[in-house]
Amino acid sequence: MSDPELVEQLLAGKHRALARAITNIEDREPGYRELVSALHRHTGGADVIGVTGSPGSGKSTLVDKLAATYRERGLTVGVIAIDPSSPYTGGAVLGDRIRMGSNVGDMDVFFRSMSARGSLGGLSTATADAVTALDAFGKDKILVETVGAGQNEIDIVKTADTVMVLVPPGSGDDVQMLKAGILEIGDVFVVNKADLEGADRTVQELREMIEYQEGGIPGTAGHHGAVASVKESGDSQSDETGEDWQAAIVETVAKRGEGVEELLETLAEHRAYLDASGRRETQARLRYAEKIRTLLREDTNELLAEEIERRGGLDRFVDRVLARETDPYAVADELLEPVEACLDGRRGRE
Amino acid sequence: MSDPELVEQLLAGKHRALARAITNIEDREPGYRELVSALHRHTGGADVIGVTGSPGSGKSTLVDKLAATYRERGLTVGVIAIDPSSPYTGGAVLGDRIRMGSNVGDMDVFFRSMSARGSLGGLSTATADAVTALDAFGKDKILVETVGAGQNEIDIVKTADTVMVLVPPGSGDDVQMLKAGILEIGDVFVVNKADLEGADRTVQELREMIEYQEGGIPGTAGHHGAVASVKESGDSQSDETGEDWQAAIVETVAKRGEGVEELLETLAEHRAYLDASGRRETQARLRYAEKIRTLLREDTNELLAEEIERRGGLDRFVDRVLARETDPYAVADELLEPVEACLDGRRGRE
Repeated sequence: MSDPELVEQLLAGKHRALARAITNIEDREPGYRELVSALHRHTGGADVIGVTGSPGSGKSTLVDKLAATYRERGLTVGVIAIDPSSPYTGGAVLGDRIRMGSNVGDMDVFFRSMSARGSLGGLSTATADAVTALDAFGKDKILVETVGAGQNEIDIVKTADTVMVLVPPGSGDDVQMLKAGILEIGDVFVVNKADLEGADRTVQELREMIEYQEGGIPGTAGHHGAVASVKESGDSQSDETGEDWQAAIVETVAKRGEGVEELLETLAEHRAYLDASGRRETQARLRYAEKIRTLLREDTNELLAEEIERRGGLDRFVDRVLARETDPYAVADELLEPVEACLDGRRGRE
Repeated sequence: MSDPELVEQLLAGKHRALARAITNIEDREPGYRELVSALHRHTGGADVIGVTGSPGSGKSTLVDKLAATYRERGLTVGVIAIDPSSPYTGGAVLGDRIRMGSNVGDMDVFFRSMSARGSLGGLSTATADAVTALDAFGKDKILVETVGAGQNEIDIVKTADTVMVLVPPGSGDDVQMLKAGILEIGDVFVVNKADLEGADRTVQELREMIEYQEGGIPGTAGHHGAVASVKESGDSQSDETGEDWQAAIVETVAKRGEGVEELLETLAEHRAYLDASGRRETQARLRYAEKIRTLLREDTNELLAEEIERRGGLDRFVDRVLARETDPYAVADELLEPVEACLDGRRGRE
């Protein structure tokens, strides 16, 4: 059951309630589903910006600067930092890192780190739910920060409207690595520490890679967004206005605040593009459909696990398969038969 | 429905029936489940050897030599070559490659290539089913050959009792790449083309990597099989006899037949180890349990897809989520409610 008081306090802007809600979500505590359900109707106002990049690309510093700059403009900010490799929740609940790293001391930058307590798939669901809580709370900007280029990190970053990829300078290797899946999901590439040697080359390599990607085959390059279209896995390249987004590259030196204004402008441009092109809604549709499918899968697995348990556990079935008394297909049929019979019976009665 | 005549002819040793059975399996034709079910009780006699390695490691040549050598010893052989990247079935049904590449012209080397017609997950299931057909047919040795080190290829190779990994010589990069998951599953590493420059260094690098893996941390190295134990993802390191398998390294020059005898001996040793340690059964148990889980997942997804379709399609639900009339959790509950109610009702009546 949901806790109506928690929902009420969160919607009234109490940071303590927000923190507790996210803890409930992260720990999958009883009632978290009803909580997220209750919050969903209050969402839709925030811009969600995903930030990824290898360790050493200066992600935390840049995220802190972005948050501080948004605050200076009077916007409220929530930061969720994901550490898929950490088995525990490392961070303090309220903004320690932000406050240490910058001059922002107010509570309107809400910082929260989350980690892989359960499965990574679960972490991606939990991240989306935490974003729901921050959005319902009324944060204007939500930054979701994660490490690396694995499929799970990509799934996490895909909970965002805009995806920012940080690339450390002078690392030809890292640009190569981007091919492994990050290039396709980046809306904005940031070469941070742009004062270091090799930054120019990195920018150049990124540019070539994006152009190659957009053109498909070098020499036949067009100007219509393979990058943007790949992101949404399979649907049409052109959107309602025929307008497409070409992945942007921005250079920053986060620790001195250089390039941050330009970055904010680029992020605003991407946001405008999302609205004008109808892509924001397209992306939301895809995300919700995927979320429903994931939940159905998880819930069904749970139902099946209960059914298997009730019938003596999987080992009993495996014993019979080993003894050649039955086989995996027959076992699957046997276990699903009651479900199918039920559904069929129900349909018959309708 | 199964085709009893097809099963009968396959069990009677007709290669034409075997070929048709594998086609039915690969194409998921109606009746393939019943076919595999009917064949399962006749399995358990074959040794299944998985062969993987990057392109250029000389896999095909070595597999041909192995098959030819087994034939010379009077054993029957089946080869399944998987090409996950190919969208069509490339090979001839009966042994063209074998016959071209060696002197074996008889029908007792049955060669079949399979490819990714459907999903790669499905390919792994289809491969296991094709192995079932070859095993029931009575082949003594079944070689399953695949390319690369992705998760799907690893899943395919894990349908084997013994996993052989080919490493091209002189490729430090390739040995590094092994870290990405192949090292853990290899029972026997083969440095083929061992007459090429760099082969010694590759063998040395492999040896160090295996020792590092076994010891866990250098300097605290023990001699008990982290390698073998990792393979079965999580259960105890020591088996019934306390005996463990240390991943072996064999050098071959397949095109001249050098080292093939030694390789066969090593494969026989691993087979003896599997029997003596009880690990063959442990692996079979894990494999069957995983197969049942996979089938349950696939079948349930199908049931759910039908249920969603029956209720007007997912888009209708997504529309309501976008309009904030409902949310993904509530939709999942709504869709699963009939299934749960059915199962609960049934349990109540018992």
